Formats: sequence, structure tokens, C-alpha cells
Amino acid sequence: MRIGIVGLGLIGGSLAWDLSCLGHQIWGVSQRPETCDLALKQGIAHRAGTDLALMNQVEVVFLCTPLGVMVKTALALVPHLQPGAVLTDVGSVKAPLVAAIAPHWPGFIGGHPMAGTAEQGLQAAQSQLFRDRPYVLTPQTITPAYALATMVELVEQLQANLHQCSPEHHDRAVAWISHLPVVVSASLISACGQEPDPQVLSLARALASSGFRDTSRVGGGNPELGVMMARFNREALLSALGEYQQELDRACKLIHREDWAALAAWLQRAHEDRPPFIKD
Amino acid sequence: MRIGIVGLGLIGGSLAWDLSCLGHQIWGVSQRPETCDLALKQGIAHRAGTDLALMNQVEVVFLCTPLGVMVKTALALVPHLQPGAVLTDVGSVKAPLVAAIAPHWPGFIGGHPMAGTAEQGLQAAQSQLFRDRPYVLTPQTITPAYALATMVELVEQLQANLHQCSPEHHDRAVAWISHLPVVVSASLISACGQEPDPQVLSLARALASSGFRDTSRVGGGNPELGVMMARFNREALLSALGEYQQELDRACKLIHREDWAALAAWLQRAHEDRPPFIKD
Repeated sequence: MRIGIVGLGLIGGSLAWDLSCLGHQIWGVSQRPETCDLALKQGIAHRAGTDLALMNQVEVVFLCTPLGVMVKTALALVPHLQPGAVLTDVGSVKAPLVAAIAPHWPGFIGGHPMAGTAEQGLQAAQSQLFRDRPYVLTPQTITPAYALATMVELVEQLQANLHQCSPEHHDRAVAWISHLPVVVSASLISACGQEPDPQVLSLARALASSGFRDTSRVGGGNPELGVMMARFNREALLSALGEYQQELDRACKLIHREDWAALAAWLQRAHEDRPPFIKD
Repeated sequence: MRIGIVGLGLIGGSLAWDLSCLGHQIWGVSQRPETCDLALKQGIAHRAGTDLALMNQVEVVFLCTPLGVMVKTALALVPHLQPGAVLTDVGSVKAPLVAAIAPHWPGFIGGHPMAGTAEQGLQAAQSQLFRDRPYVLTPQTITPAYALATMVELVEQLQANLHQCSPEHHDRAVAWISHLPVVVSASLISACGQEPDPQVLSLARALASSGFRDTSRVGGGNPELGVMMARFNREALLSALGEYQQELDRACKLIHREDWAALAAWLQRAHEDRPPFIKD
């Protein structure tokens, strides 16, 4: 298959890597000529350039730009696509992207390969990044069967774990397990910074261990990504945050009124509710 | 030195292990005769029994019982101690223990070796559990110099990282980095359980990855330990929870009114504030 990849960063580059190894023809587009040169030099793209017109002869295009420019890039790309081309994206939020792009291209289907590293850019691209990882496709009733079939085949070739759901269900699910934890975790770091006594703050830093490290990890991540997920998944995130505030408030009240039996039951439920979310 | 250890679980057993290797005489007390037998068989205790009267000839006693029975055990132990004996504990909260025990024994000094595993009991004991880990001592102005000197020497022999502070400072520091994360993390698990649509809940479980795993880890831990830390460190925990609720509320408001510049600045601060808490 001749496959186009727009945006040769970590995700786009890793897709190019695996798909070229699988025997597909990869044509890549990046804003930066140096990135195009690197992709050609690495052999993960057969053609590469800065002009979206390069996408006029490919059968499938993966949109792999940052979330913030995804719609703009899609609209600029559409006039170049050949009839019947399948267009998909890799954005971590689906409903607003699908709503903005689908009306402009019939062969569009939203996607979200849930893999990554702490690194960014083509230099960080790696083979088999998507293997055994979730890859969500969000077809709608208007999505043509050929677009879904093509993407299902490619996801299977990548050996990713395919999930299909509506864009809205995707966004609510990732609000719970991905976006809510960022705000919860960042609030923990920010709260600690409110300790007024420098001796206590310094002691807290010295004594912090794996528990604090793990709970604070995603909150201390890339601020730009955090803002993007809040902007694009605002409603689902606010709804999850509302539920979270209620649970937190419940715990505070139990501790305040020293209802240790109820606190034990609440912690026991959390203890039992966690394993279904954990795979290894 | 002849050292007594009351409570031969993970911490008591691991202390017995290292201190016996260092050449000290270890006399152990456990409520369960089988545990005494095991300690003798493992060679980590030279004498072991179920009677606190066994502590009447030791120079130092480590109280290693669960937090909930620490004070009761200390008060039962005190009549058996020889004059000049140093008494210390390993409880994860200090102010209430120090306040309850110190008036009854002049040679008492609070301690908190900050090490552990997910396992419990003597079977889980291991050598060098405390090496390169924080060991907090909480002397007061009334603490005799010999008690502090003895404990400083033993902590150094264990190759732990010694910290000295007041019981109150210890409790505020661990509220931030150990007890607050438990409530924050358990609330995350509980909130996800509030998702009303079983399809979304099932998808969330399937898509959850390292971010959710890490952020939810301490909240899904041992409920009894969670209740103990809330009971014994209630005031410091409630104060930390109050600050946390304010930070969370701040983030919610920024997202609600779509103030992305301020959200970016808030996340950037969290990003910068985290590294001093992280050692590796």
C-alpha cells in the first residue's frame, strides 16, 4: 500500500518505521526539510518533502501532527487527496477532531494509537512502538466500510490491540484514565509547594520516595500536552474532575469526623476496584 | 550491644537481620511462638520469646509492632526495662507516639526507618532493607544525649540516611509525601468507579496504562495502613488535604473558564517543582 504520513515526530516516525518494514511505500511530509532528510536517510520513508501536495497519490494518510494543528492541517490536506483515499489521525482526543474533519472528507476515520515515550521527535522514533498497545478506531455511522476495513488491517499489521468505539466514548474513557490523572497528580505537586515552613518542605523533599514519585509522575510531565488535553477534552475532563472532587470530599469528611470504619470500607473499595485497570 | 526487638515482622525482622550481622546480640519478642521459632531458626535472633520480661537485660529496644498497638505495647514494656535502656519505635507517625510514650520512659526517642516492601511478616524480612534509605530520629529537648548518641550510631551502622527533626515536623513532611498521596490516589480509583456507562468503564479499564497505574498505585494499597496513617496523623493530613483541594479547585476553575495561559503556567510550575522530590 502507498501510505502517507503527515508529521514525522515520535508517532509519525514510528508508524513510518513499522509500515515500511511491513513492505508499504511510505511518503512523508514534515514542515522541516531536515526532518525529511533524516527520514529518507533512515530509510523509513521512500519519499519525503515539505509540501502537502505530495499526498496526492497515496491510498492512506496518517495525520500525526500535534493536536493543536491537526484540524488546520487536515483542511489544508484534503484538497490534495485522491478520491477514495483513507484519512486517519493519531490525536489523543477524538470527538472535536472527528466533528471538524469528517464533514470535509468522506474517507476519514479517527484513530488513537496509545503508545509513546517521554521523548519527542523523529530521533525518538522506534520500531514496534504500537505492538501489544491499544489502538482505538472511532468509526461513525457515516464512515465508509472501506475506510474502516483498511484501518483495521493496518492496525492488525502493527500488532496493536484494536478497540472500536464512538469518539465520545473514547474521550470519556481517556478522561478517566489519562487526563484526570494529570490534573490530580499536578495538584499534588502544587499542594506540596504550599508548605510555608522551609524546614518542613526541605524534609518532605528529602523523605519523598517511590509513593510520591509514582503519584506525581504524570503531573510533572509536559505542560503543553496537559493544556492540549484539557482544551480538546474539556467537557469530559470537567465531568471527571467533578466526580473526583466528590470522592475526595467524601474521604476528607470521613477523616474529619473520625469515621474509621467507613474510611476503611472506602479504601477497601479502591483496593478492589484497581486491579481491572492494571494489566501487568 | 544487646538489642531487643519487640515485634518480629518485616521491619523488626529486617532490623534483627542486619543488627545481628553487625555483631549485636539480638533478643526478640513476638506474640506468636511460631514467629519466635522462625527467628531463632533463621539465626537473626539469639534469644526469642513471647514475654516482654525478656527485655529486662537489653540496652536498646526497637518497638516494631503495628502503629495501632505501639503505645499499649510500650506501656506494657516499660516496667521490664533496665535503668538507662534506650527505647525507640519505628512508627510512621511520630507526634502522638512520642507524646504518649516519652513521659513514661526517659530514654525514649522516636524513630522512623522509611523502608518497606509490599510484603508483610518475618518471612518477608530482608538484609540491608534500610541501607541508603531515610531513617528519621525525632529527639526532643528532654531526650537524653545518650539515647540520641546510641541511635545515631545504630542508624549509621545500618548505613541509612539519618535525618533529625521534631516529631511535628516529621508528621507534616510525611503527610505531604506519603499520606496525602494515598488519599489523592484512592480518590482517583473511586472516581473512575462512578462512571455510569458500563461500556465506557470497560473501555477505560482496557485503555488504562502506565499513567493510571502509577497514579493509582498507593491508593490501591493496604486499606488498614491507610486508616492507621489517617488516624494517627489526622491533623497534618487534613491540613494537607485542605491545600490540595484548593489547588485542585484552582485547576478546575482555569479549565472551566478556558484560561489556557494560566493553566499552562500552573502545569509548568508543577513540572519545575517536582524534581527536588525525586532522587533517581
